[in-house]
Amino acid sequence: MCELLAMSANVPTDIVFSFTGLAERGGITGPHVDGWGITFYEGKGSRTFKDACPSSQSEIASLIKRYPIKAEVVVSHIRQANRGAVCLVNTHPFSRELWGRNWTFAHNGQLTDYEDKLTPLRFTPVGNTDSELAFCWLLDSLVDKFGYQAPPEIRAVFDYIATLANELRALGVFNMLLSDGDYLLSFCSNNLCFITRKAPFGEARLVDTDVVIDFNKETTPNDVVSVIATRPLTDNEHWQTLASGQWCLFRRGECCHISEVVT
Amino acid sequence: MCELLAMSANVPTDIVFSFTGLAERGGITGPHVDGWGITFYEGKGSRTFKDACPSSQSEIASLIKRYPIKAEVVVSHIRQANRGAVCLVNTHPFSRELWGRNWTFAHNGQLTDYEDKLTPLRFTPVGNTDSELAFCWLLDSLVDKFGYQAPPEIRAVFDYIATLANELRALGVFNMLLSDGDYLLSFCSNNLCFITRKAPFGEARLVDTDVVIDFNKETTPNDVVSVIATRPLTDNEHWQTLASGQWCLFRRGECCHISEVVT
Repeated sequence: MCELLAMSANVPTDIVFSFTGLAERGGITGPHVDGWGITFYEGKGSRTFKDACPSSQSEIASLIKRYPIKAEVVVSHIRQANRGAVCLVNTHPFSRELWGRNWTFAHNGQLTDYEDKLTPLRFTPVGNTDSELAFCWLLDSLVDKFGYQAPPEIRAVFDYIATLANELRALGVFNMLLSDGDYLLSFCSNNLCFITRKAPFGEARLVDTDVVIDFNKETTPNDVVSVIATRPLTDNEHWQTLASGQWCLFRRGECCHISEVVT
Repeated sequence: MCELLAMSANVPTDIVFSFTGLAERGGITGPHVDGWGITFYEGKGSRTFKDACPSSQSEIASLIKRYPIKAEVVVSHIRQANRGAVCLVNTHPFSRELWGRNWTFAHNGQLTDYEDKLTPLRFTPVGNTDSELAFCWLLDSLVDKFGYQAPPEIRAVFDYIATLANELRALGVFNMLLSDGDYLLSFCSNNLCFITRKAPFGEARLVDTDVVIDFNKETTPNDVVSVIATRPLTDNEHWQTLASGQWCLFRRGECCHISEVVT
């Protein structure tokens, strides 16, 4: 279907290593050739690079692989289309502003019989994927519940988003990444895992291409970085697998909440 | 202050030539070193490249200068900051979704005493520029007037946007580019000009760097392309200057409306 990748870090950190592994799955080691995208949060600002061509062939992906953009949160996606044509407008991540924050969303999975259930008023898909419609419905539901003024405690919003994501999971497969640039929510339907790297750092070796990194040389002792992915990107580290319905909230590199396993 | 650049074309067209001229003004031939950005519309989809560093030094701007992305509408901006710090979140163009369209906005100028007059409810600035606030207020005013369902005749929306832009002009200097990916509105406060190129095409020579292009070799006889800029980008063609308060609407390369000169 698709593959997801995200990062949360306590200091601006580049994702060149992990993205290099993911991009291989867009045409070389994986069949996800229908576009790719990546969003970087630098402070409250964000920028998204996307392309409707395979990540393994994209000029822009090449730039992202060699030019280390340092960010606190990153959300990325490579696409194997099921709903919606292969074109820029259907390429993840999707973004919308709410409460003076840029929200970024990427989805892996497929929903069925959703059109009548997801009818947002204030946010409207530009393309025609089930993913973007689900994102618009999520944000619309936030306005229904909290109004147009940001709630004083944004943490509680993510608990509510997780309940909404669980409703979407009932409509099909719904692995999701969602961030406001501060928090990063990872919701698992059937395929999502993560790793938190902190001192003492070691070496990591990509599964998909012959690249090894020694994080000792790239980090300081206080750095904490979590990486979330559909499938582990390295083969010499322990990735924690989420169960169906389970979700994790990351902030400044740390997992600050992990829900119970739902069976 | 800043410089604006936009393009409307009837076939997907790259803006490498014009952007090469503009990018020089971000640190070489002009003082606009506080960031730059460019939005490309490919069908209904859009993507924005931006950077808080000078366009003349940016790795990403280098990519845009050598990698011809073909688009029907382009909006670009190089920044010399007056209101708001130099950082990604304050870098134009800004974008928001309304009515299932991506709206893109860039501003040249400066407003004064605007905070109490511009208090949008549904769209909120992420950064702290007068520009992004003006954009949010414009879109909020559209929802006030037309509601959350897109009006059947989108053309009329742009007449209304021009009246709103004129209200903003009363608060300072307000040269604006605004597009929904189909129409492109250029509103002049004090500095904006445009050129429409069509057959028979000729040579064009950039003002800011030693580049000449022969559009005969780059086009087909049916191509129509309009380019809008703060100051002419070429020195051997005739650019039409807009007067203060005058606005132009472009679609598929042609100027489909130009307002009377307001004195």
